[in-house]
Amino acid sequence: MDRPRHQGMAKNTNLRWRLPLVCLLWEVAMIVLFGVFVRFGAEADAHWEEEKREMNLTSDMENDFYFRYPSFQDVHVMIFVGFGFLMTFLKRYGFGAVGFNFLLAAFGIQWALLMQGWFHSFKDGKILIGVENLINADFCVGSVCIAFGAILGKTSPIQLLVMTLFQVTLFSVNEYILLNLLHVKDAGGSMTIHTFGAYFGLTVTRVLYRPNLEQSKDKQGSVYHSDLFAMIGTLYLWMYWPSFNSAISDHGDAQHRSAINTYCSLAACVLTTMAFSSMLQKKGKLDMVHIQNATLAGGVAVGTSAEMMLTPYGSLIVGSISGIVSTVGYVYFTPFLESRLHIQDTCGIHNLHAMPGLIGGIVGAITAAAATEDVYGKEGFIKAFDFTGVYQRRTPSIQGGFQAAGIVVSLLMAFAGGAIVGAILKLPIWGDAAAEKCFEDDIYWEGALPQVPEDEESDVYRMHSPDKPASP
Amino acid sequence: MDRPRHQGMAKNTNLRWRLPLVCLLWEVAMIVLFGVFVRFGAEADAHWEEEKREMNLTSDMENDFYFRYPSFQDVHVMIFVGFGFLMTFLKRYGFGAVGFNFLLAAFGIQWALLMQGWFHSFKDGKILIGVENLINADFCVGSVCIAFGAILGKTSPIQLLVMTLFQVTLFSVNEYILLNLLHVKDAGGSMTIHTFGAYFGLTVTRVLYRPNLEQSKDKQGSVYHSDLFAMIGTLYLWMYWPSFNSAISDHGDAQHRSAINTYCSLAACVLTTMAFSSMLQKKGKLDMVHIQNATLAGGVAVGTSAEMMLTPYGSLIVGSISGIVSTVGYVYFTPFLESRLHIQDTCGIHNLHAMPGLIGGIVGAITAAAATEDVYGKEGFIKAFDFTGVYQRRTPSIQGGFQAAGIVVSLLMAFAGGAIVGAILKLPIWGDAAAEKCFEDDIYWEGALPQVPEDEESDVYRMHSPDKPASP
Amino acid sequence: MDRPRHQGMAKNTNLRWRLPLVCLLWEVAMIVLFGVFVRFGAEADAHWEEEKREMNLTSDMENDFYFRYPSFQDVHVMIFVGFGFLMTFLKRYGFGAVGFNFLLAAFGIQWALLMQGWFHSFKDGKILIGVENLINADFCVGSVCIAFGAILGKTSPIQLLVMTLFQVTLFSVNEYILLNLLHVKDAGGSMTIHTFGAYFGLTVTRVLYRPNLEQSKDKQGSVYHSDLFAMIGTLYLWMYWPSFNSAISDHGDAQHRSAINTYCSLAACVLTTMAFSSMLQKKGKLDMVHIQNATLAGGVAVGTSAEMMLTPYGSLIVGSISGIVSTVGYVYFTPFLESRLHIQDTCGIHNLHAMPGLIGGIVGAITAAAATEDVYGKEGFIKAFDFTGVYQRRTPSIQGGFQAAGIVVSLLMAFAGGAIVGAILKLPIWGDAAAEKCFEDDIYWEGALPQVPEDEESDVYRMHSPDKPASP
Repeated sequence: MDRPRHQGMAKNTNLRWRLPLVCLLWEVAMIVLFGVFVRFGAEADAHWEEEKREMNLTSDMENDFYFRYPSFQDVHVMIFVGFGFLMTFLKRYGFGAVGFNFLLAAFGIQWALLMQGWFHSFKDGKILIGVENLINADFCVGSVCIAFGAILGKTSPIQLLVMTLFQVTLFSVNEYILLNLLHVKDAGGSMTIHTFGAYFGLTVTRVLYRPNLEQSKDKQGSVYHSDLFAMIGTLYLWMYWPSFNSAISDHGDAQHRSAINTYCSLAACVLTTMAFSSMLQKKGKLDMVHIQNATLAGGVAVGTSAEMMLTPYGSLIVGSISGIVSTVGYVYFTPFLESRLHIQDTCGIHNLHAMPGLIGGIVGAITAAAATEDVYGKEGFIKAFDFTGVYQRRTPSIQGGFQAAGIVVSLLMAFAGGAIVGAILKLPIWGDAAAEKCFEDDIYWEGALPQVPEDEESDVYRMHSPDKPASP
Repeated sequence: MDRPRHQGMAKNTNLRWRLPLVCLLWEVAMIVLFGVFVRFGAEADAHWEEEKREMNLTSDMENDFYFRYPSFQDVHVMIFVGFGFLMTFLKRYGFGAVGFNFLLAAFGIQWALLMQGWFHSFKDGKILIGVENLINADFCVGSVCIAFGAILGKTSPIQLLVMTLFQVTLFSVNEYILLNLLHVKDAGGSMTIHTFGAYFGLTVTRVLYRPNLEQSKDKQGSVYHSDLFAMIGTLYLWMYWPSFNSAISDHGDAQHRSAINTYCSLAACVLTTMAFSSMLQKKGKLDMVHIQNATLAGGVAVGTSAEMMLTPYGSLIVGSISGIVSTVGYVYFTPFLESRLHIQDTCGIHNLHAMPGLIGGIVGAITAAAATEDVYGKEGFIKAFDFTGVYQRRTPSIQGGFQAAGIVVSLLMAFAGGAIVGAILKLPIWGDAAAEKCFEDDIYWEGALPQVPEDEESDVYRMHSPDKPASP
Repeated sequence: MDRPRHQGMAKNTNLRWRLPLVCLLWEVAMIVLFGVFVRFGAEADAHWEEEKREMNLTSDMENDFYFRYPSFQDVHVMIFVGFGFLMTFLKRYGFGAVGFNFLLAAFGIQWALLMQGWFHSFKDGKILIGVENLINADFCVGSVCIAFGAILGKTSPIQLLVMTLFQVTLFSVNEYILLNLLHVKDAGGSMTIHTFGAYFGLTVTRVLYRPNLEQSKDKQGSVYHSDLFAMIGTLYLWMYWPSFNSAISDHGDAQHRSAINTYCSLAACVLTTMAFSSMLQKKGKLDMVHIQNATLAGGVAVGTSAEMMLTPYGSLIVGSISGIVSTVGYVYFTPFLESRLHIQDTCGIHNLHAMPGLIGGIVGAITAAAATEDVYGKEGFIKAFDFTGVYQRRTPSIQGGFQAAGIVVSLLMAFAGGAIVGAILKLPIWGDAAAEKCFEDDIYWEGALPQVPEDEESDVYRMHSPDKPASP
């Protein structure tokens, strides 16, 4: 049972020189690029006092920091604890889940500050950053964490860093096309983060298809406590999602509205998920996999429309549907994807991010197309969709069309990018493990295998229950 | 030892059709009711720009969202991670603790938005919601999470949903009587949330008394790591309690003061809890049960008075006393309640919420009665107790009397409501488990029993310590 | 193997009367002192309405509560969950790590409110507190949590309370000398919190040197799940560190800038830590100890300079270096300190806090010395360094000198204080355990040893592996 692990180490997974090289090389590159390009934005610069006068701001409270920092911290928790722990459900891959997510996200946010900065905060040869840039960097990395979910346990940290480099780049390009060229609204990232991230990851895992993966089948499950660790990730994602969808919305009513819509959608999603999780199982028992994942689909599905006048009941409807779709996905689609399409999706991101992401894009398009000055108010209407300047003439229906176009663009970028990046990751130089060694921390982590201590404990058990019969 | 689990399944715990039916039925009801009644409040509505002018607000910062959202998120964490993980101390009921808490809270907040909305935010046939409604919904559900603590491990998810439906309803009625009819102050909910929630739950568990519960005695304890999971819940409740008690206080000094008083009370509570936990144990060892629960009594006990001029040292006194009362409760009252009064209180909510809740109500009444214009300042005095309109003539001593009345009303509502709901839950149709199957996730959760994986691990142990002698 | 634990209990570790006595005595003292000295500051007092007029504040938003409360809550989480869980990595000391950290921090914040209050918030015989005092109290206690890391598992809770009493006192004196007498800037506490706390703790553990500690070597390691619990602490410290370093900075740009610099430094730190963790291990595997600790060095190292114009790339450089220094420290210095200098540093605070703290102090001195009116702007320059009143004539270079002096003073205070406190803790009256009983929760905690439940599980293991020899 345990043997294979120590035999047939066909592949070399010793990263002693490769991993440090990649990490240090990229950190040096970050330092140089930050040195050349990145500076503090006006609201974080010591010249703020002068700035305030110029902007006629009466109070420090008007500094964007106070509008967005609390949401930023919530988003930050979602990226590192949320995604990190959500993936600790595997019984033997907890270190890899939290640790590699930590590594790729830490690198990703630096590269994202640059990429997104060049597209959106570039002034006189400098990228001027503030709290909103930090949030956007976390968002961008979120899409990488999503893709990581598809290849969890099957890739080396180097592969993850390489994927991060490319995915952050493609994310920024796609985001630029959507937000700037198509003038699409997507504050919660249903399209830019979830649809793009998920289909990108699914394409990558398709290219990296491992025919013999069942050799590590025994490690693909969870144990009692690993499922509880995963619930920490689930709950933080669920609780802070209202902050995620409202973090970069306009000040005032938009942020307020986004939070309410997301709160409602997520609440509804939990009930339909529980309902279908029980219904689709012969004994009517609930499945932790569904509770850990499908309950979050409601946040993904209102990512685009949360800041619009979706209304609370609209949110309940969207949340309910996404919970059902996601749970059904885990029961029927995931096995299908693996057996038929050879898409091995470790965390089932197709159910949690891909499908709900598409729903989110579509709901956003419809909500935008249905917008009226009556519902938004004359000013609110223009403000909500930035129908100013060259977009003055854009009507809701046209906006809806562009929103829909945004979905298509995101999908194309994801498939094309995923295919290319997947091909690159297929090169035999990145130190990934053999099929029978997948989902096993022991490959890349010191002391990941239970040592003397636990063994000793199992003795302790014996010692303290002399009353119990020796179980033969 | 392991056998009984698979035998004597007298009761039918297969919820395959019942649970989905209830969940979907209620979600549909929520959607319809939200569709008819719930809309965005002015500060979350796209008409905010016009609104701002009417209210002469100079900045988006004046939107209530920025006054309350950070506190809301802390409260949100307390309800889902705080209560959820606090109850994971049971060795075999971690999924049920976190999962069912998740389910009932997600349903409860939707129903609470409606119930509380009809009482407090109803305008021209619509319920207009904003961030404060979200906080109040979480508060309302908090009282259900408290009651859940008393019946933890002994009820089916359907029973929990039924209880949630009724308890949220009764909570809202009781809250209306206290806040609107008696004009009582209770920002932190010592009376409305803790006293009501705890005695409601205790009454329910009394009605559902299980004479043969010792059959599952072996599962009523904790294991090393389940106690650590519970500490996650404890600490988040403890750390965020200042946000809980200040979340809906008036802007400015009241919120500021509530946070400080709660912070002080909780700090003192930890010391007296540790002191008595050690003192009441022959070997002077500390008991995790006390640390996990009694340390929180300080937050409950200042729930009513935190926003008043309780003063930091007043808070230390209240916190110290509540820690002692709560710890003593765990050592002496809980066993008494079970043996004499047949009240089986799984989490000991009588010690953590009931008694401290009563202390909180009394302290609130005294603090209110002792209020003077000198201490609060002329304006502060009126603002703190809303002595405006019809209440202009109310004096502190009269207010104190009404505060005391609030405790009594909450108790009566709890006993009456708990008795009725308990009777309903006693019906044999809800799929609860037999006594010997209580406190066991395996009944309602897939793969909750240790499977091959852990088994395999125990092999691994052996394998990797050839040096160790086969444990004799 | 297991025997020694139950034999040779030379020392009396029964704290039944001693611990309660100390706890209650000190809580009573706190109540008395708070009663005499502590009152609400203007912004938390019910007279706020009048206050607002006097200060010409147009909005409640101007209340410091809204500028600092979100950061306060993040800091609060770092102290209780961050430090608490970071230390749960020991396989048999999770209760002590979280529980004792909880106890000493809860006592420490009360004493810190008084000590720091007398030095900084004393007016007309009263200490007037607000949210900033709460943050500073948490900061002060942070230095105690750091010192706790060095003696983790080797001391009794009473020793920890005694140490807390003295360390908080010394911290406040040192802080007063630095901030008020030397007029040094240290918002994130590289010197006052980390350098002082770490060297204080290292000196204490040196004085308490245990020659026979290898007797409990088997318990000094971690197990799979204890490492995951520790990652919860790591991530919360890492994610919220931007709040830590910006919590008490000036309103506006300073808080904004501190958060950005810390965010960048920490991100860079993760990459260099991973690089060296892999590089310094023969098989190139990552070591959880490094990931759990060294990744945080970046936050420590910008503690002083984060609110200055360090710039993002400057932060990346500092973060990268500190990650390398810290990781190298774990691999080479820690063993050296123990074998040669007899400094037994359980958590390796020398690598996580001491060295990065010194780096932070030095970087702060350099950054301050390099400050120019051109970079900060005329007003920003004066505001950033408080070059007002008697300090009007102070130049950046002189400020840099004083900053450097601050490091020296902190070191001297730490060594002297640590030596004295260590001597006091050496007294045989505090109930610490014998060497072979160290790192074992069973001494001070009820039911910390695996009982029947897990035993039963271990049967389950057996049940599912008929192939295994029966362990009689």
